[in-house]
Amino acid sequence: MTVADLGEFGLIAAIAARLPPAAAGIIGVGDDAAVLAVPAGRPVATTDLLIEGRHFRRDWSAPADVGGKAAARNLADVAAMGAVPVALLVGLAAPGDLPVAWAEGLVDGIAAESARAGAAVVGGDVSSADTIMIAITALGDLAGRAPVTRAGARPRDVLAVAGVLGHSAAGQALLTGGLAEPASLVAAYRRPRPEYEAGPEAADLGATSMIDISDGLVADLGHVAEASGTGIDIDTARLVPGPDLLAAAAALGPASYPSQGAGAAAGGAPGGAALAPPMSWLLTGGEDHALAATFPPDARLPARWTVLGHVHAGHGVTVDGRPWPGRAGWEHYR
Amino acid sequence: MTVADLGEFGLIAAIAARLPPAAAGIIGVGDDAAVLAVPAGRPVATTDLLIEGRHFRRDWSAPADVGGKAAARNLADVAAMGAVPVALLVGLAAPGDLPVAWAEGLVDGIAAESARAGAAVVGGDVSSADTIMIAITALGDLAGRAPVTRAGARPRDVLAVAGVLGHSAAGQALLTGGLAEPASLVAAYRRPRPEYEAGPEAADLGATSMIDISDGLVADLGHVAEASGTGIDIDTARLVPGPDLLAAAAALGPASYPSQGAGAAAGGAPGGAALAPPMSWLLTGGEDHALAATFPPDARLPARWTVLGHVHAGHGVTVDGRPWPGRAGWEHYR
Repeated sequence: MTVADLGEFGLIAAIAARLPPAAAGIIGVGDDAAVLAVPAGRPVATTDLLIEGRHFRRDWSAPADVGGKAAARNLADVAAMGAVPVALLVGLAAPGDLPVAWAEGLVDGIAAESARAGAAVVGGDVSSADTIMIAITALGDLAGRAPVTRAGARPRDVLAVAGVLGHSAAGQALLTGGLAEPASLVAAYRRPRPEYEAGPEAADLGATSMIDISDGLVADLGHVAEASGTGIDIDTARLVPGPDLLAAAAALGPASYPSQGAGAAAGGAPGGAALAPPMSWLLTGGEDHALAATFPPDARLPARWTVLGHVHAGHGVTVDGRPWPGRAGWEHYR
Repeated sequence: MTVADLGEFGLIAAIAARLPPAAAGIIGVGDDAAVLAVPAGRPVATTDLLIEGRHFRRDWSAPADVGGKAAARNLADVAAMGAVPVALLVGLAAPGDLPVAWAEGLVDGIAAESARAGAAVVGGDVSSADTIMIAITALGDLAGRAPVTRAGARPRDVLAVAGVLGHSAAGQALLTGGLAEPASLVAAYRRPRPEYEAGPEAADLGATSMIDISDGLVADLGHVAEASGTGIDIDTARLVPGPDLLAAAAALGPASYPSQGAGAAAGGAPGGAALAPPMSWLLTGGEDHALAATFPPDARLPARWTVLGHVHAGHGVTVDGRPWPGRAGWEHYR
């Protein structure tokens, strides 16, 4: 059964049937627009596109993994403002010969990751297209918190990260090399598990800036440094690769050194050529959607936050005090 | 200059530079997510995809027209809930050889239509892709009003419409036939001008249901009839084509009778074969984004609302009391 067999309205009905019913006071799928409850009146909104062949490959990821990852990258953006995820809207453009089961799996993955974040799928759109394109918009609720932007880092703040780094990049390198172990890294590539609750937690801890690591630690901290008018230094002595990353680097050997500008077919590829894996994965691998935040020097951070460096009065991102010589992270059209 | 010349971040900067600065209390483009103000706490959200070759053709529409139309279809969905449009998020996937000027024109059109509706572009995403795909999410504010859904029509309610019907379909038929006059209809195809303020107005007038006409009057009223568990009859004696529609039908002659299921390359094509134009345009042409609403029988409606029929205890949509024999409107994969 293909989506063309079902037709647009049949496909929408099949998708809607897989979603839990809307909570009280919420209007979900099926009207001109969804209606949400954001009692404190400061909704947060972000949108992302995923294109087959660029952000995912159907031969590398099950549809539920593609959906889970698509939801995660948007939900993490909401969390990175200090907000609690509330709702997702899903646009799906796909060729008529796409199996309905693939679309259903995609929606199952989106719904499951949304539920993990406390959010619900409340609306969307379906269109025919030559390529699969997924457009997700995530909405959140600041719940009375002030938003944590990229612009508030101050000299002497500490830089800390919640969540894993480099796992998705290592998993992608393994798949590119035809390997499937360590399985935890392949799973991290297919289905990142951001710690959404760390976002509001950081806001409550007095975070001065925050960003989600989608393009790579160096690249994304570059946005914070620029927006804040500060420099940020990463201390690699604090970037300790776990046994899985070490095993992956050993298994791949020199093949795991991505060449400058090579990029891979399916999104988020690290391009840093300055250091070997696993350090290059830690510094330039995106798509784990860890949260990076800066905190006042005297902040007392819970265990999930790992201090990795500090903010200073300079500019740009340095690694152990030196400019990063390689490619900092993923950029479309590059 | 192409978007590949600029790169992802350069393109985002070029787009952001064309947008007015965010209003006080709003965080717009440039952070992980936008932050909005919806004081009464009931945001409304809707999303739509537009694909080149299916929803628009670059040889038929200037980029600002594509952008204006893309924004309009989302903003009209917000209005159709009885809400005031507040913000738009824009995802743009495009090939690297797309001229930057086209992307800038698109954004100009989106921003202009947003401003016409009182909303602002607050965020988005950019990706490389083989085809141009535009994903727009619109957010609105019910401002204390109860949402007007599709489900509240009651027998004996009157059906009324605010805005034009069939103009976009007629304009598309003219372009398909290689004609450019009447120019007002071609302009209506390229750039619909929904009456957004009619949405909250209808809510204040006690509308029992509302929908925006995106797929055609018969098709979209079908959603209202189904959701409300009622029947709706359209009285064609009240559907009076203006001189432009009559002129277009005369100019096109028999060529303007779309054959069953033919559809046209670029979205919203009428397929109704039961009646000749201009009546078929009025009944099945979408994309003018007029608002159709049902009101209690004793409602006193301002002049912009034209009564076109009534709700009854049956089911489905009838035209002059008879089932509609043709195709009701546009559906993807059909």
